[in-house]
Amino acid sequence: MKIVLDAMGGDHAPQVNIEGAVETVQESDDIEVILVGDEAAIRKELKSRKHKPGRISIVHASQVVEMHEATTTAIRKKRDSSIRVGVGLVKAGRADAFVSAGHSGVVMGTSLLLLGTSKGVDRPAIATLMPTLKDTFILLDVGANVDCKPENLQQFALMGNIYCRLILGREQPKVGLLSIGEEDVKGNELTKEAFKLIKQSSVNFIGNIEGKDIFTGIADVVVCDGFIGNVALKISEGLAETILKMLKKEIANVTAGKLGYLMLKPAIRNFKKRTDYDEYGGAPLLGINGTSIISHGRSSAKAIRNALRVANDFARKRVYEAISEAIQSDLTARTG
Amino acid sequence: MKIVLDAMGGDHAPQVNIEGAVETVQESDDIEVILVGDEAAIRKELKSRKHKPGRISIVHASQVVEMHEATTTAIRKKRDSSIRVGVGLVKAGRADAFVSAGHSGVVMGTSLLLLGTSKGVDRPAIATLMPTLKDTFILLDVGANVDCKPENLQQFALMGNIYCRLILGREQPKVGLLSIGEEDVKGNELTKEAFKLIKQSSVNFIGNIEGKDIFTGIADVVVCDGFIGNVALKISEGLAETILKMLKKEIANVTAGKLGYLMLKPAIRNFKKRTDYDEYGGAPLLGINGTSIISHGRSSAKAIRNALRVANDFARKRVYEAISEAIQSDLTARTG
Repeated sequence: MKIVLDAMGGDHAPQVNIEGAVETVQESDDIEVILVGDEAAIRKELKSRKHKPGRISIVHASQVVEMHEATTTAIRKKRDSSIRVGVGLVKAGRADAFVSAGHSGVVMGTSLLLLGTSKGVDRPAIATLMPTLKDTFILLDVGANVDCKPENLQQFALMGNIYCRLILGREQPKVGLLSIGEEDVKGNELTKEAFKLIKQSSVNFIGNIEGKDIFTGIADVVVCDGFIGNVALKISEGLAETILKMLKKEIANVTAGKLGYLMLKPAIRNFKKRTDYDEYGGAPLLGINGTSIISHGRSSAKAIRNALRVANDFARKRVYEAISEAIQSDLTARTG
Repeated sequence: MKIVLDAMGGDHAPQVNIEGAVETVQESDDIEVILVGDEAAIRKELKSRKHKPGRISIVHASQVVEMHEATTTAIRKKRDSSIRVGVGLVKAGRADAFVSAGHSGVVMGTSLLLLGTSKGVDRPAIATLMPTLKDTFILLDVGANVDCKPENLQQFALMGNIYCRLILGREQPKVGLLSIGEEDVKGNELTKEAFKLIKQSSVNFIGNIEGKDIFTGIADVVVCDGFIGNVALKISEGLAETILKMLKKEIANVTAGKLGYLMLKPAIRNFKKRTDYDEYGGAPLLGINGTSIISHGRSSAKAIRNALRVANDFARKRVYEAISEAIQSDLTARTG
């Protein structure tokens, strides 16, 4: 697979991006990386790193979208940005997938603009993996659509289900609807309507699940609108960081604490790994007619490497086609 | 102050409720507790505990609302429940505040039905305290209203502000709006409209704040609709529990872990205390024309004691009157 990597996107670009690309082609046999961005800067970074020849190429793009830019303006005005040029390569059939740790709104908007939605899909969704006590679950949407209709949530359920089956390899994913009570009738207007629609769908729907239960592994896929999902994701990130800081502070306050902390270090390192977003390698944009992966702005080389691996997997398994088929056949089954 | 305690509400009622009441009158000089519920059961529990005479009384109620009951049915049909009788005592002027660890929907509905909203208030809100790295913040609404209008959020901002000033004693609370980006224009339709209204209000509005920042102590009051607030609260509870479990599991996997854990125990105990909802003693129902406190269903005797203390504080400072005044004067200032 040929994966386009936005060399300029992210807080530590282009260094970590190119490091991630180089490591990827060293480790894998089936990935070619096309680096898009400032050619001189990319060449300079590449020069200082050994890599297999022929599996990394460069396509120049003269502009960079900065993190603070307004989404619509950046999409309209920066026609030669690394994001625009990169997604354009997928659109033109010259690459199989796009990965960026840059401005997520612009990555999403540009992917939607150039690639369009898969047939049958009304709105795309950003899906992210989150840790549970046992494994992981998929949360979607985490920010593509802040105001959703019940039909959107129903499609998110179908899309998350395909992601879980094809990429995580779980046969019959348990799909839950994020709400404020387990009973069928609990929720707000949006979730109450969405509940009825998802119940009629061809997914293994386990009903409403509460925020307190999502991390127990009760569901493989958790569906919500993009506002709630983004708040939930950010709260989880913030709280996990805060809890570790609080623990460290408390530890510093007790006499035997520092020694205890040293002895616990391997455990804390393992724990951090389990809750480390770098490990999951980026959030796929589901419902787009192609493969587009959004990586965290703070991505390290490891995160980039994982995002390239995820992109390769999504493209190879043609997840976007499976999503389109699932949504169309679900519609046929429900409406005849 | 005379505080009514629902003796029958909560997972560990009536034992812990009565234990909490007895401890409260032992410790404080200015609280009388009226226990409402099954008189025989209450007398039996009281008998086995020493307590100062004259500061605890009993009012009989023949029915108990179970946790699984539908809110509207329970309110309509159980006219002699401990919740209904208890709130009735406040309504009749025979007590200053009501506390229950029972069915929160029924406590809210009954309080609203019997006491009504404070003058000027459209919708009440449930406010809860959450820990930050430095101190605490108030999150509201956490479940009274799952579908809100922008005006409701604006009133929540004013109500949270009063709570923070009068009860937590912070002079100029920083009030934030929970959203998905810091910029003024970020958010969904509801928060974008609410942003404009709160900005015109007489609170120290610091704008949108993201989920990842709420635990840093950036704001004293965080405003959101009841669906988001409830999800946020439950996710925080669930994640905190999960993180501690994950840490314990990781610790069990490393050789020196168990010894390290023993040495860290005081730190973990302090940490648990800081994140322990029992410590905060219940969530006030703001905007009701009277004092009504909802305690966690899993309340311990300590949680009940803290809820009684909070109820005493709210009643003594007449928070519900201050809220009414603030909302009316804000309306006058904005509309003339």
